Amino acid sequence: MVTRHARHSATTAKATPMPRPSPCLFCAISAGDQPGHLVLRTDEMAAFLDVRPVFKGHVLLVPRTHVQTLTDLPGELLAPFLAAAQQLARAVEDGLGAGGSFVAMNNRVSQSVAHLHLHVVPRTKGDGLRGFFWPRTRYADDAEAADYAERLRASLDG
Amino acid sequence: MVTRHARHSATTAKATPMPRPSPCLFCAISAGDQPGHLVLRTDEMAAFLDVRPVFKGHVLLVPRTHVQTLTDLPGELLAPFLAAAQQLARAVEDGLGAGGSFVAMNNRVSQSVAHLHLHVVPRTKGDGLRGFFWPRTRYADDAEAADYAERLRASLDG
Repeated sequence: MVTRHARHSATTAKATPMPRPSPCLFCAISAGDQPGHLVLRTDEMAAFLDVRPVFKGHVLLVPRTHVQTLTDLPGELLAPFLAAAQQLARAVEDGLGAGGSFVAMNNRVSQSVAHLHLHVVPRTKGDGLRGFFWPRTRYADDAEAADYAERLRASLDG
Repeated sequence: MVTRHARHSATTAKATPMPRPSPCLFCAISAGDQPGHLVLRTDEMAAFLDVRPVFKGHVLLVPRTHVQTLTDLPGELLAPFLAAAQQLARAVEDGLGAGGSFVAMNNRVSQSVAHLHLHVVPRTKGDGLRGFFWPRTRYADDAEAADYAERLRASLDG
């Protein structure tokens, strides 16, 4: 419920300077200003251990420039970002003996830190990760699937 | 148990041509030789609906050239692949009204089709996807984390 007092406070807040945004944790770790187990750092990219790994060796890859989501990543960083992801996917296999990897990112929904980060998680057959595949659903019929595809194509063409 | 007869058959099989490998399903869908709801197709990339979506509008992005995993993707396809992923992440938001996206791939372990494919899944806050974040574990101590980071760095430098 918005009271008069609350309204007044909101108006006051607008007139005063906004509090300075908190420094971004991933910018700080990438810069070496916050502790973190860095595994890769170039002029453009950094990767460090996730402190609460799905499996040990779980790494987060970030562009050192602050962008929030995948769609915000500038064109010139696309190849360097994915090349670093390739290196990390290879490293969890070769360096840690994993059988494969799970490579994933959340954009906005379920994104815990608002700085684009790609999870590279070592996987082993039978490791118990049920992954994101459950539960699956079904389209009601082919017409419904066709409608979804059409809406995506229209957006891609727009 | 290997019987004499089985051994003999195995020897015979070696001498005859190997059965032609099954055509790759994702190569076939990308080429239009198998049905699929294509949402994007360029000379290099294709994307189509997953038939058993996590959420409706769930798309699979593949390079049209057959490679198995992320590390197999040739350098010249890195930027086009991630650029297409950006377009799809934007399309599930703009075209389907999703609040965000989940973008993920399995390499080898849990990889259902041996053709590199990136899942782009529309997400909505409160949609119930618990994601791959559970359960999380912890490093026993900082020394254990440092050891994992060192093994990854050694592999990356190797």
